[in-house]
Amino acid sequence: MPAYSTNMRLKFPILALTLEIITIILFAVFVVYDDGKHGGHGAHNNATHHEEKTEQNPLTLYPMFQDVHVMIFIGFGFLMTFLKRYGFSSVGLNLLLAAFALQWGLLVQGLWHLDEGKIKVSIFKMINADFSTATVLISFGAVLGKTSPVQLLIMTLLEITIFGINEHLVAEVLKVSANDVGASMIIHAFGAYFGLAVARMLYRPALRNGHENDGSVYHSDLFAMIGTVFLWMFWPSFNSAIAEPGADQLMAVTNTYFSLAACVLSAYAVSSLVEHKGKLDMVHIQNATLAGGVAVGTCADMDIGPFGAMIIGFVAGIVSTLGFKFLTPILASNLGIQDTCGVHNLHGMPGILGGIAGIVAVALGKKDGSAAMQAAALASSLGFALVGGAMTGLIMKLPFWGQPPDQNCFDDSIYWEVPEEEEGEESLAHGDHSMNKAEA
Amino acid sequence: MPAYSTNMRLKFPILALTLEIITIILFAVFVVYDDGKHGGHGAHNNATHHEEKTEQNPLTLYPMFQDVHVMIFIGFGFLMTFLKRYGFSSVGLNLLLAAFALQWGLLVQGLWHLDEGKIKVSIFKMINADFSTATVLISFGAVLGKTSPVQLLIMTLLEITIFGINEHLVAEVLKVSANDVGASMIIHAFGAYFGLAVARMLYRPALRNGHENDGSVYHSDLFAMIGTVFLWMFWPSFNSAIAEPGADQLMAVTNTYFSLAACVLSAYAVSSLVEHKGKLDMVHIQNATLAGGVAVGTCADMDIGPFGAMIIGFVAGIVSTLGFKFLTPILASNLGIQDTCGVHNLHGMPGILGGIAGIVAVALGKKDGSAAMQAAALASSLGFALVGGAMTGLIMKLPFWGQPPDQNCFDDSIYWEVPEEEEGEESLAHGDHSMNKAEA
Amino acid sequence: MPAYSTNMRLKFPILALTLEIITIILFAVFVVYDDGKHGGHGAHNNATHHEEKTEQNPLTLYPMFQDVHVMIFIGFGFLMTFLKRYGFSSVGLNLLLAAFALQWGLLVQGLWHLDEGKIKVSIFKMINADFSTATVLISFGAVLGKTSPVQLLIMTLLEITIFGINEHLVAEVLKVSANDVGASMIIHAFGAYFGLAVARMLYRPALRNGHENDGSVYHSDLFAMIGTVFLWMFWPSFNSAIAEPGADQLMAVTNTYFSLAACVLSAYAVSSLVEHKGKLDMVHIQNATLAGGVAVGTCADMDIGPFGAMIIGFVAGIVSTLGFKFLTPILASNLGIQDTCGVHNLHGMPGILGGIAGIVAVALGKKDGSAAMQAAALASSLGFALVGGAMTGLIMKLPFWGQPPDQNCFDDSIYWEVPEEEEGEESLAHGDHSMNKAEA
Repeated sequence: MPAYSTNMRLKFPILALTLEIITIILFAVFVVYDDGKHGGHGAHNNATHHEEKTEQNPLTLYPMFQDVHVMIFIGFGFLMTFLKRYGFSSVGLNLLLAAFALQWGLLVQGLWHLDEGKIKVSIFKMINADFSTATVLISFGAVLGKTSPVQLLIMTLLEITIFGINEHLVAEVLKVSANDVGASMIIHAFGAYFGLAVARMLYRPALRNGHENDGSVYHSDLFAMIGTVFLWMFWPSFNSAIAEPGADQLMAVTNTYFSLAACVLSAYAVSSLVEHKGKLDMVHIQNATLAGGVAVGTCADMDIGPFGAMIIGFVAGIVSTLGFKFLTPILASNLGIQDTCGVHNLHGMPGILGGIAGIVAVALGKKDGSAAMQAAALASSLGFALVGGAMTGLIMKLPFWGQPPDQNCFDDSIYWEVPEEEEGEESLAHGDHSMNKAEA
Repeated sequence: MPAYSTNMRLKFPILALTLEIITIILFAVFVVYDDGKHGGHGAHNNATHHEEKTEQNPLTLYPMFQDVHVMIFIGFGFLMTFLKRYGFSSVGLNLLLAAFALQWGLLVQGLWHLDEGKIKVSIFKMINADFSTATVLISFGAVLGKTSPVQLLIMTLLEITIFGINEHLVAEVLKVSANDVGASMIIHAFGAYFGLAVARMLYRPALRNGHENDGSVYHSDLFAMIGTVFLWMFWPSFNSAIAEPGADQLMAVTNTYFSLAACVLSAYAVSSLVEHKGKLDMVHIQNATLAGGVAVGTCADMDIGPFGAMIIGFVAGIVSTLGFKFLTPILASNLGIQDTCGVHNLHGMPGILGGIAGIVAVALGKKDGSAAMQAAALASSLGFALVGGAMTGLIMKLPFWGQPPDQNCFDDSIYWEVPEEEEGEESLAHGDHSMNKAEA
Repeated sequence: MPAYSTNMRLKFPILALTLEIITIILFAVFVVYDDGKHGGHGAHNNATHHEEKTEQNPLTLYPMFQDVHVMIFIGFGFLMTFLKRYGFSSVGLNLLLAAFALQWGLLVQGLWHLDEGKIKVSIFKMINADFSTATVLISFGAVLGKTSPVQLLIMTLLEITIFGINEHLVAEVLKVSANDVGASMIIHAFGAYFGLAVARMLYRPALRNGHENDGSVYHSDLFAMIGTVFLWMFWPSFNSAIAEPGADQLMAVTNTYFSLAACVLSAYAVSSLVEHKGKLDMVHIQNATLAGGVAVGTCADMDIGPFGAMIIGFVAGIVSTLGFKFLTPILASNLGIQDTCGVHNLHGMPGILGGIAGIVAVALGKKDGSAAMQAAALASSLGFALVGGAMTGLIMKLPFWGQPPDQNCFDDSIYWEVPEEEEGEESLAHGDHSMNKAEA
């Protein structure tokens, strides 16, 4: 079975080293330190303007950058550790993909806006590089447990590139860069639908009836809550980091803080309402409590009032929880979209909700802009995501990337040395056994 | 057994949604963004003065706000995950209660100090809203494992309201707002004695001899250490966030940093001294190492000298550890106060110690103020806590809030979908079994 | 067997309380709050200059201080929880040692630079105090599982003192304080070789063939990843916290950010390349991904270009991973150096690499300085570490410090009350059993 040649010994190191060496060469050619001076290229107005304002102390944004950094590496990484036997991959591959994505993202984003032929690295650009990684990590959630590290590096390379094109289009052609400050559209909706398109291409009929490792154990759910809570706490930084300093940035913090708080109440309420005997479901709590951060993203720096932000968060918590309960099973069974982490419910629908809220808010004059352009930005993000994701999925399906066989899905031991377990824990022994079959 | 109707399916969602909708309506009426201008109401001098100083950059306090945020959501949440089968509730209900408490706290605190009829949300007010949630989370620790989510939402609603009255009294009538900067009295002592009064009202004779789930396992103690260490690290931010910018704020950071460091040494020493064969006890390490942060709170911005702060921390570590070892069992057996997390030792006694240290420090001229007023502030906080807590406990005891039956205490599976366990882990099966009994 | 009198009941509390009381007395004599004015002692130029620049707001460095704080207490603490039965000691003794070390470090560092006869505590000094603790925690990693709390407090006392002498020599005599901004030499290489020298002195022939508890289980590896990721994220703060504000500090952040990103790719690639069937090894991922932060430390604020930083990180990831795979076993079997955490691979070799990179960078004119002085600083750090560590190890070997017997190594239950386990987990029962033998 050449399609299941899962041994990574040569193909993974060669790919990883090649990508990194190419990246270092491109950095040597294009990337320099920020010198505080910015040329008049006039292209990325928001960035330039922002950078001018903070130019006196180049580290003003640093605390917010670190909050975003924590979201990317701890937040996304641990959120995905809920699977009982896939924690190493979740937090480990999250680190690998994000470390490559931030380098590649800085290049892709920077090449559109060269300043004297160079990319000048500021904290602002590092935040944007971290942002670009978020799209990959969202898509990673959709295919979690069903892809090899090699496939995922390929996905990172392609997704960041396509993200960069869509971001440029939205920011420079549609001129709505200032009106997706928390990136509901260009990150969350984009990353989700990109991942869903990939998942559709990689559909596995054999997993229709689930997989014994596609679930959590008690402690893995607690590890996942580390991710959830760090994402929840620092989301105000995510949505405000690139806002205009001053009142706009404070508004973005405030709106996100209250949207998330309202979202928690509605997510808990609906989880209890739809679950067996009124019990709370960890899947909802780990994810739907964050939907308020996604959905308020586009409007975060608009004058929608704290109660407006709370309404958005409240609705997002309901929509997201209902999505996990009712929509995810339908997507899997009827459309062949096996969305491991339910990114459609956390990033997809709330991202669209955020885009629509932005259209409405701009139409109501809450911020300067054009409702039509907002709608075009949403459509562009969805279009690039679906088409780009489908193409990427097809490439990932090529047989030599070491995709894991069905029985080894959701199992770290195919790509990791997993410690021997103590007596009494038989499940891992099963995992090892099935893995051996695959390698034979 | 109507008193043990533990099914949350209707009562929890209805209560949560109702509270959130009312909150959103109140926000629509009262809450606006901070515009940087502050009317001359003259009431909350400290806040206004502070806000004027930082008005040029409204996000100056944002990093400290995020530190406090981490303490509230990660710190308190994970500190309580030490129970072997109550981790979902600990970190999950912590998130729920805090998310509601910060909204309600902002309203309650803001309504005393309306500015042009509005509450103008600044980072300073968001920090205070987070502070108000701390009282609820401290009280939550006293009743952990023995209350339903519905009861806890009721407690949050009432405790925040009573907290707001006491805070107003202390700040505006007794004029000592500036002299409880780290809130030893109005948060820590208040939250602890409020919780103890509630616990007394909810006394369960059947738990006199303990409960099989009222204890830790190896990994749950490590999860709890995540909470401990984040609380320990960020306590300097908690005690200095609302201090006067400049030298006072630096003093608050410095005093708290050294008090905590000294507290660690004395807590470890006394833990080893009183334990079997000189071994360290995780309960002490998780909690008593933090007592130095509580006890130095009132004096944090007073000129007590770094060594003065260290003496306070050193004593607090001893008092707290001895409390866990000797006092908690007496409170449970003689007074009927079953204090799950030992909040009396971490927040109660160290809070009083902090209040007394503040009285002495003001009497010695370490800060402008009146020792009598400091004493009145401590007395007021204790009085409101005990009376308010007792009343709240009586209300929580009403039979329709779904209080868990004795055998289901300290067990997530009564309110949460708990994942099926792997073979060999029988304890959960027991838990499920007893739960089924309760629901039958 | 008096050498194995492991009962800590008297000796540990007496030592801990004595050290803390002496420390408080020294603080009462020497330590005061920073008043923003700095005398013209001219000694520690970098510090003074830095402090002058930030004197207007004494809390400018506070967010970076908190990042470093998280690295010390969460980062180092959880990184060492990878051992299956030593998590309490890893995170708990990390807290104890660091809490003492930061107080002692502030004194030792401050006594060289008295200002009007006093040590004036600023955030800058608190960062340096935290830095000094890092040396102890690195050395702790080398002897993890094989030393008693009493031995470790002795080590802390001595190592911090010797560190202070070397730091003074490097900064004031060799005048290269400004050119080891991220402390590759004076912290990382120093701490590693100090620890290795101690480990050599404490060599245990009986552990030549390993120990059943000297390994990880699935969840302990996930706890360790909490430490890894927090260290990885906040390393830019570590390497830039004491850099000159402005462009230099931004350069230090940028270089560290990219060095770490490149290091991840090379560490993953080499881990897969050298492991059985191309699998990734958690030991490498937890540690070697951080080597880029160590190795870029000395050059962090030098004008080496982002790609230069990436090359350093790339090489460090390779060297560190190869060290874990091939060198650690040789050190143990041929040189009698049993390095539990492999600090030689994470801090030792990358620290030397960083020192060499600094020599080359200064020679190439990337920063003012003398390549010879850089080399002398590296030699001094290694010399003090090896000699100081050997002497400290000899003192630690004295029979009355309660060193654990071989069979109780890597086992929390010798110094901690460990909770009873659920059925089916037999390994702990074994641990308890062997412990009882030791105490008998």
